[in-house]
Amino acid sequence: MAKPIRVTVWGEFVHEKTSDAVRAIYPKGMHTTIADSIRASLGGDVQVRTATLEEPEHGLTDAVLAQTDVLTWWGHCAHDKVEHAIVDRVHKRVLEGMGILVLHSGHYSKIFKKLMGTGCGLKWREAAEQERIWCVNPSHPIADGVGEYFELEHEEMYGELFDIPEPEELIFIGWFEGGEVFRSGCTWRRGKGKVFYFQPGHETFPAYHDKNVQKVIANGVKWAAPTPGAPYSLSAPNHKALNPIRSKHVVDESLHKKK
Amino acid sequence: MAKPIRVTVWGEFVHEKTSDAVRAIYPKGMHTTIADSIRASLGGDVQVRTATLEEPEHGLTDAVLAQTDVLTWWGHCAHDKVEHAIVDRVHKRVLEGMGILVLHSGHYSKIFKKLMGTGCGLKWREAAEQERIWCVNPSHPIADGVGEYFELEHEEMYGELFDIPEPEELIFIGWFEGGEVFRSGCTWRRGKGKVFYFQPGHETFPAYHDKNVQKVIANGVKWAAPTPGAPYSLSAPNHKALNPIRSKHVVDESLHKKK
Amino acid sequence: MAKPIRVTVWGEFVHEKTSDAVRAIYPKGMHTTIADSIRASLGGDVQVRTATLEEPEHGLTDAVLAQTDVLTWWGHCAHDKVEHAIVDRVHKRVLEGMGILVLHSGHYSKIFKKLMGTGCGLKWREAAEQERIWCVNPSHPIADGVGEYFELEHEEMYGELFDIPEPEELIFIGWFEGGEVFRSGCTWRRGKGKVFYFQPGHETFPAYHDKNVQKVIANGVKWAAPTPGAPYSLSAPNHKALNPIRSKHVVDESLHKKK
Amino acid sequence: MAKPIRVTVWGEFVHEKTSDAVRAIYPKGMHTTIADSIRASLGGDVQVRTATLEEPEHGLTDAVLAQTDVLTWWGHCAHDKVEHAIVDRVHKRVLEGMGILVLHSGHYSKIFKKLMGTGCGLKWREAAEQERIWCVNPSHPIADGVGEYFELEHEEMYGELFDIPEPEELIFIGWFEGGEVFRSGCTWRRGKGKVFYFQPGHETFPAYHDKNVQKVIANGVKWAAPTPGAPYSLSAPNHKALNPIRSKHVVDESLHKKK
Repeated sequence: MAKPIRVTVWGEFVHEKTSDAVRAIYPKGMHTTIADSIRASLGGDVQVRTATLEEPEHGLTDAVLAQTDVLTWWGHCAHDKVEHAIVDRVHKRVLEGMGILVLHSGHYSKIFKKLMGTGCGLKWREAAEQERIWCVNPSHPIADGVGEYFELEHEEMYGELFDIPEPEELIFIGWFEGGEVFRSGCTWRRGKGKVFYFQPGHETFPAYHDKNVQKVIANGVKWAAPTPGAPYSLSAPNHKALNPIRSKHVVDESLHKKK
Repeated sequence: MAKPIRVTVWGEFVHEKTSDAVRAIYPKGMHTTIADSIRASLGGDVQVRTATLEEPEHGLTDAVLAQTDVLTWWGHCAHDKVEHAIVDRVHKRVLEGMGILVLHSGHYSKIFKKLMGTGCGLKWREAAEQERIWCVNPSHPIADGVGEYFELEHEEMYGELFDIPEPEELIFIGWFEGGEVFRSGCTWRRGKGKVFYFQPGHETFPAYHDKNVQKVIANGVKWAAPTPGAPYSLSAPNHKALNPIRSKHVVDESLHKKK
Repeated sequence: MAKPIRVTVWGEFVHEKTSDAVRAIYPKGMHTTIADSIRASLGGDVQVRTATLEEPEHGLTDAVLAQTDVLTWWGHCAHDKVEHAIVDRVHKRVLEGMGILVLHSGHYSKIFKKLMGTGCGLKWREAAEQERIWCVNPSHPIADGVGEYFELEHEEMYGELFDIPEPEELIFIGWFEGGEVFRSGCTWRRGKGKVFYFQPGHETFPAYHDKNVQKVIANGVKWAAPTPGAPYSLSAPNHKALNPIRSKHVVDESLHKKK
Repeated sequence: MAKPIRVTVWGEFVHEKTSDAVRAIYPKGMHTTIADSIRASLGGDVQVRTATLEEPEHGLTDAVLAQTDVLTWWGHCAHDKVEHAIVDRVHKRVLEGMGILVLHSGHYSKIFKKLMGTGCGLKWREAAEQERIWCVNPSHPIADGVGEYFELEHEEMYGELFDIPEPEELIFIGWFEGGEVFRSGCTWRRGKGKVFYFQPGHETFPAYHDKNVQKVIANGVKWAAPTPGAPYSLSAPNHKALNPIRSKHVVDESLHKKK
């Protein structure tokens, strides 16, 4: 039997403490709802813990990350309070193979910008409008069991231009009642880790109670979980020749001291 | 008549001052050789200047970057001496549309890592071995006038795994006598800017005197030059609805103060 | 001065002869309107001819194709009347470097299916609804001079799932009033040729009179025009070793007679 | 427990009957060796059958294909003997979700060309030379358990330019002793089906007895197996509006008779 996927659900957990509207939807915090839904979807195939901004090291100690196969990230109003050292630590873990799901306003988090290399901006509008999310990659495991489209009655509009690198796989495109479109589900690989961005999840709407959103997140966790793969290293090693080299040129290696 | 492409050739310019071997090949610095070759290839279609590490602000002032359409970057032993503020400035300009050519050991520069989001490591070996660079994208403008392959008698080996995001366009693959392969010519888009990485150019070999390498760099400059394109913004603006929204839900916008 | 791009605008030219509504919009045929707009946009940079289904060899003789740098293709009700031999001829020319723009209902043409390898289906609805076309690739030359989005008052709805291979470059996404989205502008490379699919252009609406649509088509012609590039061949040649091979194994080449 | 993946291994099975050299390596046919190795690797997770050219309908009846989750394809000297109707049948099944692994000289098969839309040519040389296959996508499940590289003592050279569409995922690059490189492991999606091309497997060398080659093929079978995914259809259905349309324009639907 396969070992359970160890998931850490990271939540900023600020709006829930300052806004009645948000607390009404997510009384124990958005992270708790997300964690519960992953457990409910995947059962014994996962072990789920949570971590939040206010915990020491934002709950993302070396020990926690070492035991995390997939991290999910939701943040919004406190991106700038996330310490650079923790961002670097998470980034290193992604490169080494930890999967990461970046949710909704996490698009503007330090870790997502660092992984993407772009500005990660977008258009937005909070107007309780309808969103319809269309699947454009029907064989992708992240689309398992999702229909041609699914709808959210009320969602914050996120609109193009979404300033991301061309997705390696574009899975969902969102249609918004007010007239915009959005690349709502996108994947990339970074180092040995897999990245999935998924757009729904504004704090004043109940997206994380929606069964389709929950399904996609559960699919995303399974997809992003590390596979054995091939070797990966963060270093730039000197490598001995595997085949004969004919040149008699003498190389002065002194310039490589620094490398 | 089209306006000339304004090119800034950035060179670390350290090895040339400390190593007789390097100075013998590039007496005025590698940047000078690269700049001269771009001028010779593109004539009146370009205006070329150079900038180096030791200049104030590494020669990359706001004024210089504002007048730069395409930046080329060669660095090696002093990546860590490039100031973060200058890296951020260059990064912002790339997102806004400036093209960038990252050359050889520039793979480990701060700016390339920031654009890629990966570790950017690779294998290397300095053994004066033969490299043969094969074209795998024959209709790409960067491959204009290059044959099925071209050869460099002596080049530093750069080998896989090259820790980069999957290239949007893979143009060249290098074959090394000692037994390795390398994705030697790759492109990506970041924001409104175009990025081209090109592998040849070890400081102790005369790659930048090679006519094929010069041709590819000139092609890269033309490809990476900004086009008018569509609007781009680094911000995340609120956007008024373009079509009617039916919901009567009242939105509390107070949570957006921070955005 | 660069040689003009030789463009052949292919039109099925059936609806215009059978429907008053279509003739009212395109009195000389859609192909004539498209050809005129390319001439008006690009002036001396192009030489434009037209060809239609009813002409001998559909107007696409070897001689015409040999003098065509970029072909544009609009068909709808008579896809099955296009002869296979002509489709194969066009396909071969694309692989050899001729650019092709496939317009609107051309998605179901034999040539597009042959280039894509997929079913090329989609959802559709003719309801005179609004379309808004968003740019998601602002540095692409096909997006030159187009805004963040542009609108068509009345267009046929084309909706996902559009059964195409993942575009190499996704440039436009369409939003439809009735609730669908569509990957409206996509590029691929096939052999040495470039392919651009562009969605607007239903025969009962005046899309090809729209200045934004015209601009995109003109940009597409310039983008798809052949560049010198690197060598390309449709054959599978035997290739002599460029470097020494150590094996003493004797090879029996008799099995290769067929290759 | 998951249902076994139903695999059909298709072999041309001609060389084995005409060449002593081939028969010495693959006495029961290459297809039997491949089938046995998949069974040995995946055990109860697969049910494997074989089919060959000489069987009625090449062994690929509607019934067989209906019960096939993943098809592997090896052909060489008799590509032109494969009936078009069978190719169309296989193509349709791939679009509907059947995975396909195209092996070695299958690059020139009708089914591969039809899926790719390109010429699928390459360079080749039978010189019993060494190949070293490097992994460039370490987190891909097809690379599970494969090292940084693996070697084949003797393989036919396959060299660039390999005339394929840009791979969606490039997993392996081959290095050949005689001086060429090759994109040896590539994936694409077509409709709802997944395609994996893998280069080793010349009939006069024992590639399919190699444990790394066997490992990659087994990984490929698991990767290409259908997932539930989202709905997919080969049709182009009319679709009723999901949201209100404001236009009062009257649409004449008579032109759609043909669609």
